[in-house]
Amino acid sequence: MRLSSDQIQACNEPLLRRHQQAFARLSEYLEAEGFQPDALIAQIQQLQIAIPSWALGTGGTRFGRFPIGGEPRNLEEKIEDVGLLHALNRASGAISLHIPWDIPRDAAHIRSLAAALGLKFDAVNSNTFQDQPDQPLSYKFGSLCHTDPAVRRQAIDHNIEVIQYGKDLGSHCLSIWLADGSNFPGQRSFVQAFQHTLSSLQEIYAALPDDWIMLVEYKPYEPNFYATVIQDWGTAFLLSQKLGTKARVLVDLGHHLPNTNIEQIVATLMMEDRLGGFHFNDSKYGDDDLTVGSIKPYQLFLIFHELVQGLQSRNRSVDSLAWMIDASHNTKDPLEDLLQSVEAIQLAFAQALIVNRKALAEAQQQNDVAWCQELMQGAFRTDLRPLIAEARLQAGGAISPLHTYRQLQVRQQLIAQRGKKAVATGL
Amino acid sequence: MRLSSDQIQACNEPLLRRHQQAFARLSEYLEAEGFQPDALIAQIQQLQIAIPSWALGTGGTRFGRFPIGGEPRNLEEKIEDVGLLHALNRASGAISLHIPWDIPRDAAHIRSLAAALGLKFDAVNSNTFQDQPDQPLSYKFGSLCHTDPAVRRQAIDHNIEVIQYGKDLGSHCLSIWLADGSNFPGQRSFVQAFQHTLSSLQEIYAALPDDWIMLVEYKPYEPNFYATVIQDWGTAFLLSQKLGTKARVLVDLGHHLPNTNIEQIVATLMMEDRLGGFHFNDSKYGDDDLTVGSIKPYQLFLIFHELVQGLQSRNRSVDSLAWMIDASHNTKDPLEDLLQSVEAIQLAFAQALIVNRKALAEAQQQNDVAWCQELMQGAFRTDLRPLIAEARLQAGGAISPLHTYRQLQVRQQLIAQRGKKAVATGL
Amino acid sequence: MRLSSDQIQACNEPLLRRHQQAFARLSEYLEAEGFQPDALIAQIQQLQIAIPSWALGTGGTRFGRFPIGGEPRNLEEKIEDVGLLHALNRASGAISLHIPWDIPRDAAHIRSLAAALGLKFDAVNSNTFQDQPDQPLSYKFGSLCHTDPAVRRQAIDHNIEVIQYGKDLGSHCLSIWLADGSNFPGQRSFVQAFQHTLSSLQEIYAALPDDWIMLVEYKPYEPNFYATVIQDWGTAFLLSQKLGTKARVLVDLGHHLPNTNIEQIVATLMMEDRLGGFHFNDSKYGDDDLTVGSIKPYQLFLIFHELVQGLQSRNRSVDSLAWMIDASHNTKDPLEDLLQSVEAIQLAFAQALIVNRKALAEAQQQNDVAWCQELMQGAFRTDLRPLIAEARLQAGGAISPLHTYRQLQVRQQLIAQRGKKAVATGL
Amino acid sequence: MRLSSDQIQACNEPLLRRHQQAFARLSEYLEAEGFQPDALIAQIQQLQIAIPSWALGTGGTRFGRFPIGGEPRNLEEKIEDVGLLHALNRASGAISLHIPWDIPRDAAHIRSLAAALGLKFDAVNSNTFQDQPDQPLSYKFGSLCHTDPAVRRQAIDHNIEVIQYGKDLGSHCLSIWLADGSNFPGQRSFVQAFQHTLSSLQEIYAALPDDWIMLVEYKPYEPNFYATVIQDWGTAFLLSQKLGTKARVLVDLGHHLPNTNIEQIVATLMMEDRLGGFHFNDSKYGDDDLTVGSIKPYQLFLIFHELVQGLQSRNRSVDSLAWMIDASHNTKDPLEDLLQSVEAIQLAFAQALIVNRKALAEAQQQNDVAWCQELMQGAFRTDLRPLIAEARLQAGGAISPLHTYRQLQVRQQLIAQRGKKAVATGL
Repeated sequence: MRLSSDQIQACNEPLLRRHQQAFARLSEYLEAEGFQPDALIAQIQQLQIAIPSWALGTGGTRFGRFPIGGEPRNLEEKIEDVGLLHALNRASGAISLHIPWDIPRDAAHIRSLAAALGLKFDAVNSNTFQDQPDQPLSYKFGSLCHTDPAVRRQAIDHNIEVIQYGKDLGSHCLSIWLADGSNFPGQRSFVQAFQHTLSSLQEIYAALPDDWIMLVEYKPYEPNFYATVIQDWGTAFLLSQKLGTKARVLVDLGHHLPNTNIEQIVATLMMEDRLGGFHFNDSKYGDDDLTVGSIKPYQLFLIFHELVQGLQSRNRSVDSLAWMIDASHNTKDPLEDLLQSVEAIQLAFAQALIVNRKALAEAQQQNDVAWCQELMQGAFRTDLRPLIAEARLQAGGAISPLHTYRQLQVRQQLIAQRGKKAVATGL
Repeated sequence: MRLSSDQIQACNEPLLRRHQQAFARLSEYLEAEGFQPDALIAQIQQLQIAIPSWALGTGGTRFGRFPIGGEPRNLEEKIEDVGLLHALNRASGAISLHIPWDIPRDAAHIRSLAAALGLKFDAVNSNTFQDQPDQPLSYKFGSLCHTDPAVRRQAIDHNIEVIQYGKDLGSHCLSIWLADGSNFPGQRSFVQAFQHTLSSLQEIYAALPDDWIMLVEYKPYEPNFYATVIQDWGTAFLLSQKLGTKARVLVDLGHHLPNTNIEQIVATLMMEDRLGGFHFNDSKYGDDDLTVGSIKPYQLFLIFHELVQGLQSRNRSVDSLAWMIDASHNTKDPLEDLLQSVEAIQLAFAQALIVNRKALAEAQQQNDVAWCQELMQGAFRTDLRPLIAEARLQAGGAISPLHTYRQLQVRQQLIAQRGKKAVATGL
Repeated sequence: MRLSSDQIQACNEPLLRRHQQAFARLSEYLEAEGFQPDALIAQIQQLQIAIPSWALGTGGTRFGRFPIGGEPRNLEEKIEDVGLLHALNRASGAISLHIPWDIPRDAAHIRSLAAALGLKFDAVNSNTFQDQPDQPLSYKFGSLCHTDPAVRRQAIDHNIEVIQYGKDLGSHCLSIWLADGSNFPGQRSFVQAFQHTLSSLQEIYAALPDDWIMLVEYKPYEPNFYATVIQDWGTAFLLSQKLGTKARVLVDLGHHLPNTNIEQIVATLMMEDRLGGFHFNDSKYGDDDLTVGSIKPYQLFLIFHELVQGLQSRNRSVDSLAWMIDASHNTKDPLEDLLQSVEAIQLAFAQALIVNRKALAEAQQQNDVAWCQELMQGAFRTDLRPLIAEARLQAGGAISPLHTYRQLQVRQQLIAQRGKKAVATGL
Repeated sequence: MRLSSDQIQACNEPLLRRHQQAFARLSEYLEAEGFQPDALIAQIQQLQIAIPSWALGTGGTRFGRFPIGGEPRNLEEKIEDVGLLHALNRASGAISLHIPWDIPRDAAHIRSLAAALGLKFDAVNSNTFQDQPDQPLSYKFGSLCHTDPAVRRQAIDHNIEVIQYGKDLGSHCLSIWLADGSNFPGQRSFVQAFQHTLSSLQEIYAALPDDWIMLVEYKPYEPNFYATVIQDWGTAFLLSQKLGTKARVLVDLGHHLPNTNIEQIVATLMMEDRLGGFHFNDSKYGDDDLTVGSIKPYQLFLIFHELVQGLQSRNRSVDSLAWMIDASHNTKDPLEDLLQSVEAIQLAFAQALIVNRKALAEAQQQNDVAWCQELMQGAFRTDLRPLIAEARLQAGGAISPLHTYRQLQVRQQLIAQRGKKAVATGL
């Protein structure tokens, strides 16, 4: 299923007048504040968020899963779904694959399918946290950190194979999340686990093409509940230092202990040129994998404030980082959830763009704390939804992607085509 | 020091045109959404936030305190400071006193002083968490829960004395926060501590006038670090049930364990008609006592969403609850901090007023989760700052209280009058 | 498979002398401290811990599951497994079933099977957090709290059916855990969800036999990640108050926010006669469901200190509460894990029995904080492992259950009998 | 006041027989397990814990402080107090000073005073988190990170002065804890704050003698409640890398977010040769500064397990790390609290010494998770109190320091000498 430009324009029609009024009001405000709406729109349009192939089906917890129907049954259908999102919001122009869930048997075919929908291939992801049927050795007690060199070998080879798949698709990035850890004190030597992991990563790193990046992800717990090998940014950073300049840290917003100041971690990693990319989601308790911006929108803005600051101060373009969503859509329609997620990211990015950085730097220099807060909250409280809508509209997308998605009855059509019981490959 | 209407109007003058444009744009939007700006303004103006007398000086931590100068040296100057705030924002029309820090030696004089500034006396607060010079018995090991009946007697009598001070001033509410607890496992019998506390509260309750409310506050830790007698809303609720209908629970936003869903607690307490009032502040880690809305503005909105829902569904007026700020201004000018705090509360309240409750109830009924989120975030993301400014302006206050406060050099004048080393009585 | 007394005795033989020496040393110490080892042993033997039928297979997370082989394929084999545990430790004399995972098609047969192994049926558990194949209505958006009365009806009927199964087996207790909640702010009305849940529970309560108890469990999050209907003990307590005296609160150690003082909750619930039972496990981060006592053994002791205190002060016998394990054995052999869990519970119970309560009460009365700590830690630091071993030995069990389990190659035999790929029914 | 050997021996007398029995029983057990009690005692006696000069008086919170009387009024009396502790436990043979609270006006005199009591000078601590009277510039908005170079200069010079004091006393270690941070988002540039801090530390580092160590401490929050400049071990590690090999990380057990796996941090820092020392305390919620081992004794053991492992594998002696207590004694007699703290540390250390490391390594290699737990808990559950008592006894200390302290009425004598209202210099 594809959405044509005509379909989208037809849905935009009745919303147009009201949008134009809203955008005019906002433009008036922004201009009075010294911002050029056009310039902002151009920056917003550059931000493309990769959709992970595993987020297109209904997610679940250890207690159960409640499928919605019409889920993509194969890689082709996953690309189709990302194409639907991108047609609506013009900001989801990339897909992030997960091996072995999404093995591209015919890479050329897959590439042309994606290209036809305007999609690129972002980071490829390896999987050593599950046992696949017929896999010789088990990852029950770890993969790259395993005490048995044969298991490490298997996990290393898998990662190298994933790089190969990525090369075939035009990806330039390998993303590694390790579930490795322990459930009980004393179960594993921390030092040995680190050293095994490092030496395994070094072998994978050696297989990495020169123009690739290796993303090293950290997570304090789950699925192991006493310790994980890469428990925090410090450990991921240390590994990346030892690996080389192509190794970078991946920040998943849900992978932190309660109350962590994530924006400071982001700033530090950018300062050290070790930030590689993001897994966006939101959470209240742990790795809840909720819709981005649904719980702590101000924190999301603060993170983007650091990102914009870091990119601008280093003269980096927005696409020098890997921007990915990593969420689990347990009770919402996954595609609706992703539309909301991308919009929340765009809003936070746009809010960060209208922080008065010159005034802020001055207030900071004078320790005018109250004024710093005014400047930050002023940007955040500005209602930039019409700006994002205008960016979409100008790029050929929908004024209101969620409305249009519903109006065009996309889910119903997907169910009709794929069946009520279609379940996405993956988790 | 007092701010005249003329001074404030003069400061409004140059901001007026831009404010009117912004308010016109917002009104256009609100009306299109089906809201009457005038009706919203009327509701906003009804919400008066009590300023605690102890928040007018610089706060501190156990590690130190950095005074700003010009702090109020006595109760009269504290009232003067609240008068300044109220003159600017017309939303701080009440003061909450703390005994023995603010003993009104001449109640009639204090009442007329406050009345002249348009201020009422909200909850009076007792203090059994510190030892006062010449106090016969120490609260080192508790007050209302103490193992020694003589200490309990002293603490009970103090609370009854506080009620008397409150009666003299026209207050109708006693607020009790107990630091009582223990630092080490086994230090205290949980059951005995509860029973002592209950029986002490019952004596105080018996001294409460019929038209008074007793607010019972809970807190999980600090200054005791293993356990507190009233550790959570469940314990405060249980005590209030045993005490009677005049006993209500006070919710301090900072008095919760990490990740607590506070808005649900608020909803439950209102459902049971046991919510008495609020101590507003914000926090990232513990009882950080930061400016309201400075860290988690969305959570603040969600709390107000429940408050508005609860008040409307029970046909209660806004002043049926005790609305108080309880924050510690360690690095900001306390008066600036309070201006920011009141504005953040007003914004959250106004956002809650524009939730489309009919549409929300329908979406909830249909479990249309994505749509519920759209409705909630739609209200939150609306920039209502011009509405709050207009509410102030119409009530004779400042378009921008913070600008006006600075322009009129209030702090400088307070320092000139009271001295650079003036330190507020209190903590 | 069954373990004969002879087999166990044979394994005890080589350990006997060393055990007797250790027990003699400990007895000497205990007697010097004023305790009768025999009396302690009698109390320890009274404590029987129910094994949940769902904990006999390998557990998993949303990321995967790594089966061990030989898992029980049906209810009969689950009972067989609990029989193995009980034969070894003589302290696992009860089983807690989960419907529909363990429907007893032939109750008389199941009862006699259990009786032959010395097992009783503890609480029966309903399941409205998953959809079963061919279930008419989905629990995706809740069960007892659902907005649709037909879903609530289905969930109520299921619970009543579970009571019936329990009656057939001789159980006297229904345990209800609700996954009901919401993933996003605004998704659900807190008040409506509570009221629906209450009215559903009232219907189930009405079907409860007079000599039954209904256990209401609370949990702050998971599988819903914004809010749960019964988020904390306060909410469960409120429901149980409204339901009646047969309703009690179930405390699962893993169902608390970070840093919660659980022992105080236990004390409060016992004080109000509303504690119904326990789900024992341990955790470092969330509902990690690790082996009891593996992470925070001192906290476990403190909880038992309150339990012993509460039981003694109310003259209640140990079996007036429902003692259950609820853990997930992801990387250990489930049977080994359960042996360790039961031993940890016994140790904490025994430690609580040797707290010098008279001296503690005196030290508490005098606020002699340091001495209170000495008394508590003195009990906890005492190595009571020989006492537990002796209690087992005298009851016909193994001196060292884990050694004996391994020596008798139980798991290998189970795999031989049931197959390497046998997977327990359940989650 | 000093305690003579005779006094202590006299107090030991009535306890001796029972202690000898207990020690004999334990020795029998330990020898059967393959350990030499004498060798363990020798190792225990090597572990000397530095007492911080600021922990000898009653601590407090922002809400108040309840002095006990007889607190040391000057540096001489602080040394006297540490001498009392060391006489009792023979394990507190060092003191850690805090400048400017404990400026040694006459270094030679102070040194001889300490030497007479068998005390060394451990790390000296700078203080840039408070303003001292007559200090030219304020640290309200930071010290080494301040936006104003003059404030940074002042803070750098202070640290260099502290080094000088330390040299005079024979210390070899500067400990730096920075309160620097921010209370509100946007208040400070993370990157600029880091860079200022680094460059300030570099100047201090340059003034560090060759045989000195600089300890860099991290803390996530308090007294700043949004962000701290050195928020976690990763940031402290990064700074120490940039500074040089004399810079090490200091781990304060209370300076972590909820649920942090501290033992893994310890292992990682030792692996990288960047662990410098410890501030021991215990906590349930935040930086509660409670008695070591009073809340989470198993965690303390796990940390010592890593320390012993790290020291042994690198062939380091126990005194290659700086072992310090940093606690706040709010409700206990500070000296009693310190006696309990040192004992808890010794117990955890001794437990770590009796972990069967060979068996553990094998079980780890085979991923025998249950067995790893048995080995760890086996060591922890062993009651080693008689071993610690014997180590003290052999070194001339008290069998039971707390009993002896009370029997000799130390506090009463200190009050008699110094007065009921004597308050320790410091916080």
